[in-house]
Amino acid sequence: MLRWLTAGESHGPELVAIIEGLPAGVPVSLSGIREDLARRRLGYGRGARQKFEEDELSLSSGVRFGVSMGSPIAIRIGNTEWPRWVDVMSAEPVDLATLPKGRGAPLTRPRPGHADLVGMQKYGFEEARNVLERASARETAARVALGAVARSFLASLDVRLVSHTVAIGTVRVPDGTPLPGPQDVARLDDDLVRCGDPATSERMVAEVDAAQKDGDTLGGIVEVLAYGLPPGLGSYAHWDRRLDSQLAAALMGIQAIKAVEVGDGFATATRRGSRAHDELFASEDGITRSTDRAGGTEGGMSTGSVLRVSAAMKPISTVPHALRTVDVATGGTAEAHHQRSDVCAVPAAGVVAEAMVALVLANSMIEKFGGDSIEETRRNLLGYLDAIPAN
Amino acid sequence: MLRWLTAGESHGPELVAIIEGLPAGVPVSLSGIREDLARRRLGYGRGARQKFEEDELSLSSGVRFGVSMGSPIAIRIGNTEWPRWVDVMSAEPVDLATLPKGRGAPLTRPRPGHADLVGMQKYGFEEARNVLERASARETAARVALGAVARSFLASLDVRLVSHTVAIGTVRVPDGTPLPGPQDVARLDDDLVRCGDPATSERMVAEVDAAQKDGDTLGGIVEVLAYGLPPGLGSYAHWDRRLDSQLAAALMGIQAIKAVEVGDGFATATRRGSRAHDELFASEDGITRSTDRAGGTEGGMSTGSVLRVSAAMKPISTVPHALRTVDVATGGTAEAHHQRSDVCAVPAAGVVAEAMVALVLANSMIEKFGGDSIEETRRNLLGYLDAIPAN
Amino acid sequence: MLRWLTAGESHGPELVAIIEGLPAGVPVSLSGIREDLARRRLGYGRGARQKFEEDELSLSSGVRFGVSMGSPIAIRIGNTEWPRWVDVMSAEPVDLATLPKGRGAPLTRPRPGHADLVGMQKYGFEEARNVLERASARETAARVALGAVARSFLASLDVRLVSHTVAIGTVRVPDGTPLPGPQDVARLDDDLVRCGDPATSERMVAEVDAAQKDGDTLGGIVEVLAYGLPPGLGSYAHWDRRLDSQLAAALMGIQAIKAVEVGDGFATATRRGSRAHDELFASEDGITRSTDRAGGTEGGMSTGSVLRVSAAMKPISTVPHALRTVDVATGGTAEAHHQRSDVCAVPAAGVVAEAMVALVLANSMIEKFGGDSIEETRRNLLGYLDAIPAN
Amino acid sequence: MLRWLTAGESHGPELVAIIEGLPAGVPVSLSGIREDLARRRLGYGRGARQKFEEDELSLSSGVRFGVSMGSPIAIRIGNTEWPRWVDVMSAEPVDLATLPKGRGAPLTRPRPGHADLVGMQKYGFEEARNVLERASARETAARVALGAVARSFLASLDVRLVSHTVAIGTVRVPDGTPLPGPQDVARLDDDLVRCGDPATSERMVAEVDAAQKDGDTLGGIVEVLAYGLPPGLGSYAHWDRRLDSQLAAALMGIQAIKAVEVGDGFATATRRGSRAHDELFASEDGITRSTDRAGGTEGGMSTGSVLRVSAAMKPISTVPHALRTVDVATGGTAEAHHQRSDVCAVPAAGVVAEAMVALVLANSMIEKFGGDSIEETRRNLLGYLDAIPAN
Repeated sequence: MLRWLTAGESHGPELVAIIEGLPAGVPVSLSGIREDLARRRLGYGRGARQKFEEDELSLSSGVRFGVSMGSPIAIRIGNTEWPRWVDVMSAEPVDLATLPKGRGAPLTRPRPGHADLVGMQKYGFEEARNVLERASARETAARVALGAVARSFLASLDVRLVSHTVAIGTVRVPDGTPLPGPQDVARLDDDLVRCGDPATSERMVAEVDAAQKDGDTLGGIVEVLAYGLPPGLGSYAHWDRRLDSQLAAALMGIQAIKAVEVGDGFATATRRGSRAHDELFASEDGITRSTDRAGGTEGGMSTGSVLRVSAAMKPISTVPHALRTVDVATGGTAEAHHQRSDVCAVPAAGVVAEAMVALVLANSMIEKFGGDSIEETRRNLLGYLDAIPAN
Repeated sequence: MLRWLTAGESHGPELVAIIEGLPAGVPVSLSGIREDLARRRLGYGRGARQKFEEDELSLSSGVRFGVSMGSPIAIRIGNTEWPRWVDVMSAEPVDLATLPKGRGAPLTRPRPGHADLVGMQKYGFEEARNVLERASARETAARVALGAVARSFLASLDVRLVSHTVAIGTVRVPDGTPLPGPQDVARLDDDLVRCGDPATSERMVAEVDAAQKDGDTLGGIVEVLAYGLPPGLGSYAHWDRRLDSQLAAALMGIQAIKAVEVGDGFATATRRGSRAHDELFASEDGITRSTDRAGGTEGGMSTGSVLRVSAAMKPISTVPHALRTVDVATGGTAEAHHQRSDVCAVPAAGVVAEAMVALVLANSMIEKFGGDSIEETRRNLLGYLDAIPAN
Repeated sequence: MLRWLTAGESHGPELVAIIEGLPAGVPVSLSGIREDLARRRLGYGRGARQKFEEDELSLSSGVRFGVSMGSPIAIRIGNTEWPRWVDVMSAEPVDLATLPKGRGAPLTRPRPGHADLVGMQKYGFEEARNVLERASARETAARVALGAVARSFLASLDVRLVSHTVAIGTVRVPDGTPLPGPQDVARLDDDLVRCGDPATSERMVAEVDAAQKDGDTLGGIVEVLAYGLPPGLGSYAHWDRRLDSQLAAALMGIQAIKAVEVGDGFATATRRGSRAHDELFASEDGITRSTDRAGGTEGGMSTGSVLRVSAAMKPISTVPHALRTVDVATGGTAEAHHQRSDVCAVPAAGVVAEAMVALVLANSMIEKFGGDSIEETRRNLLGYLDAIPAN
Repeated sequence: MLRWLTAGESHGPELVAIIEGLPAGVPVSLSGIREDLARRRLGYGRGARQKFEEDELSLSSGVRFGVSMGSPIAIRIGNTEWPRWVDVMSAEPVDLATLPKGRGAPLTRPRPGHADLVGMQKYGFEEARNVLERASARETAARVALGAVARSFLASLDVRLVSHTVAIGTVRVPDGTPLPGPQDVARLDDDLVRCGDPATSERMVAEVDAAQKDGDTLGGIVEVLAYGLPPGLGSYAHWDRRLDSQLAAALMGIQAIKAVEVGDGFATATRRGSRAHDELFASEDGITRSTDRAGGTEGGMSTGSVLRVSAAMKPISTVPHALRTVDVATGGTAEAHHQRSDVCAVPAAGVVAEAMVALVLANSMIEKFGGDSIEETRRNLLGYLDAIPAN
């Protein structure tokens, strides 16, 4: 079982993540993690904040001479802005009167669409600083770092992930557009909005420009694909072992995600049964499917076809034309705080979703194949594949 | 923490479920559970199988004099068809040659859209009987039984659940139709398809009739609502503590569910930020929201507004006009087995979804408020609500 | 991961247990489980109650034609005394005035050494019936049933367990007595107190007779041994993955157990380092140890030597010469309830301890080797053993 | 639920620990953690290594202005020796030929009593460096840091912990010596071996001197006490919810611990029932016990009496007069590596054991009382205590 925890506030000194349960011998490098963190900062429509995040990355443990040791891996992602926040986010008590006026002021106007108000109620806070510091999407950088490790493990088992932008606002990749494959990853990352279809990408950029001009924000849809999975990850035997259940939890567990689909998802619900499933055919490589409407899962298990899941992201809640709220200090009507100027975070969400999917799949691989070294896990995987009858 | 396991095959002697961690003093009755099981059999378009399920229900433990004891609750749901399956599903070894021809024949033609093929590959089975016995939706009866217990616990804390059918095939409840409330439950259960809008219900019934006439099957969408939740269930502090993540896992963990939404879900992704969130207002009862686009969660926590989640079900995979498959015994093309004549299981899926949501919410209540007796949990809940500032 | 829950009250209709996560193809039979349940009733010094427990056993699910199906296994152990308790332990409300005087009377004199008083305080009960019904050792029958399944899984992987009585009261097997092996199991079960040393066994029987004559009770020590484990179960990588930590939890989680040792345990703490560890030698079979002071674990992992753990059981708390207590109904001094006439339950505790160790080891096997069928798990195990260098 | 992970190698750059699930508002300070880390370095008979550990400590997250924020807390403990190990423990690939001769040499002579050999077999390593780096007791510093946080939480709920040395080698505190209380903590920490009885302490010091003179090492026994617990932590309802089971896992999960007792433990097993339990008496404060043989648990729950658990530590495995082993590079007989010159680590083990007990108890408090702020948890606790009847 793969266990992991992340820690860290948005303006604290650093994010920290620990992952436990990875076999030994998996290639792990700072450059690989750094690359994924850089991908997370991609995307047209982001504000200045993203630049702050290009910061020191370090591996505290669990990796030696470029490969995992079997012991827990700890990763730190420093915050280059920390010097400006040393007082406001001090772990030690400070004289509140000495805090800087702006950053140090109590956040008493909770932002609609954010965790602010409920977080204050839940934890008994008088203002929202403690809440937004942890609830913010900055935390996903820690997940992306761990996801890079999981992706490397999967790559050692010949599984490759791809993520891309399927929709921004009302602009969507046309039905029937071919799915991108592992060979398209660099091209996707080079695209302004991480969309594989150039014409749609252009329209998405225009959509972002239009929203920005209007002082508004946008959401969208991202899709993650996994190539090379064996059949049989997950299980129908108990609901929480279903791979699609675990994938749904992982994707819905990302900030701002409000919907998740496996395969054709909601569209499948509108189809009749005769046109909704993937028929089976004999081939030289064993039994295959000619369609992948199901998104690569049947009965809560990977089928060996391409795994395909998507997630819908709501528009950024901090709207430049600020939303109405209540000032909890006075009880009066107010405009919500807004601290960020991004218009659209959808391209980055694809990278986060990819990380979450990688973590789920890595865990499923370990659950099914065991192993304390990558050689052992791989040997077990190959032995299983060999034992599946050819027809 | 609430833990639960279900066991049981579709044609085995019985389903068994155990739930552990419920406080003492929660009303639990066979009649309450039986009622929920009956609701699960509702719905126009079901085949003969449903009648088989009206069977002996018993409480093996954990309940005394009508209330929970704090110890694990075990529920059994007998299968009245068992006498016909005693040989085929025998736990003890049998002479395979003596098995009845029909029920006892090896299932070597895996059904597309089912767990059959992958299940055989995963577990090393030569035919699909073992797979479909557990992967079938019959298992959800055990969840509904546990869900009835969870609902009773929630009712003791003044939380009420409602589920209803939102779409069948291409027929969907019109936008803007008012949400049903706790007072509508009986009316929903009386409706042929558990739809709250009479005109839509009629069109859904016609859709089912049309599909049946064509030898085809239908999917659809169900929605679950929870009224009376306190703010602050779940947490933004770690991804897997997010209430929406847990709800997504629970819903996607139901057989045949391919998509999950919280609040406006995918629609939210197409809106601009200025029209996608729920603004905050001061009122006599504290801070309120005039809309509920978010579906009652912000930052992965319940807001205190109506919780609203929906799930999309694919059409039944066993299509009367059988799908193409491969006979694993011969390697040749074949038609898939089909054992069931239902056209549409969406109305029942709402009841299952409601059970899963109840189990998630009950767990969240216990996580936040603790308590080993319902009095203790309730006292803690009320103490928390009292401590939330009025504005 | 192997998950399991037990349910059931001491005088309820039945015990129920579910285990989830076992590979398919493991031999499971009612007769095997029944045999282990019979072993649990062994032992000189037990009262009449044990006879009650010879009751219907049934497999509700997860087993077909004599082997596991990969789906959850549910086992029921009926209570033949149930007809006498139907009213007192009714799940449905009853008129309390109609309850039989003896069995139905409120238990307001909590027994020292039992869960009675604290259970009432924790769960808010006015008398102890609900508490003792679940806290009683009757529940361990469910664990023994599950343990029988786990033992069969381990046997399929050539791992054999042995349990025996090491001490009763002040009578203890002399130091230096050879450890019993798998070939001794029948002989141990035939012994009156499940002790492998005939002379000590006689003295133990005399100790029980003496205590009984004095109206008193006895505790003792049991030991569990596992033969044939591979090296490397458990891990030093995180504390809760240590095999000895998991074994300690499993043994201390048995009713009345107050201490747990691995290998020479407390004795090791008194030795100097030069005589406390197991030196390593080269042999034809690879590196071996000539002693097993450590009890078969190093660094929280199985070494491949014989695993050896022991547990100390306190004397039965229901003492015929009843202990002093307080009547919670009156506040006055009273004598504790006593319902049972056993003098010593140590021989049976060995069987329970063996079951718990089997469950821990089975889980560790699955964690390290994965596999969804016994063939797959076994192939992975053998592949691992082959890869260990010979010297 | 409190979740936590530790990471870090013995000679890596730092240890890292994350704890998740602590309510907001708990006092947490670097000085408090530092103090506990200093206590872990106490104890007569330690070698030079301990000085290395006086290093930079930092809080990366989860604490603001001196109190917890409800979000995960990450703690780092830097290794001042790191500059000497930068190459040998490099996360990035290095040219092995350039490594320093001593520290960089392959460790092919696994040490008996350590994880070395099995760790190599399990993870497929050719030498033991990766194993001992994580298996070493250095890791316990991370647990002590987390334990300091847990202790502060418990202190906010008026629960106080005490740990002390009960035995070193064959020298043991005499039976009947009064238990130390919270008021004795400073005195215990000032004692050379953290023993509360001055005469015994002197004899322990002499025992250490004698062992050192002989080139040998010593183990011993530590005890942890908790004052101020409410009744009802843990539960008899399921085995793994038993508080004593969880405590046993926590203590046995510490490096070098081979046995665990609750209350009188093994001694209880030799007593007769009439003298083994704690009788109940009415008093002005409700029902009380005049003895505490059980160690403060009954039926797997805290009774409200002093909780008392002890753990036996084997002698340090790295014996100056080195043990015999096999050189895995040659297959020939060899002397084990030895890197450390400590004679006895028992006094420090008490501090580690205290940390583990604190983490278990903190988790139990959260499980029973819930709460997202210390005020909420405390309010729930007091409400529960108020509801317990006075007699």
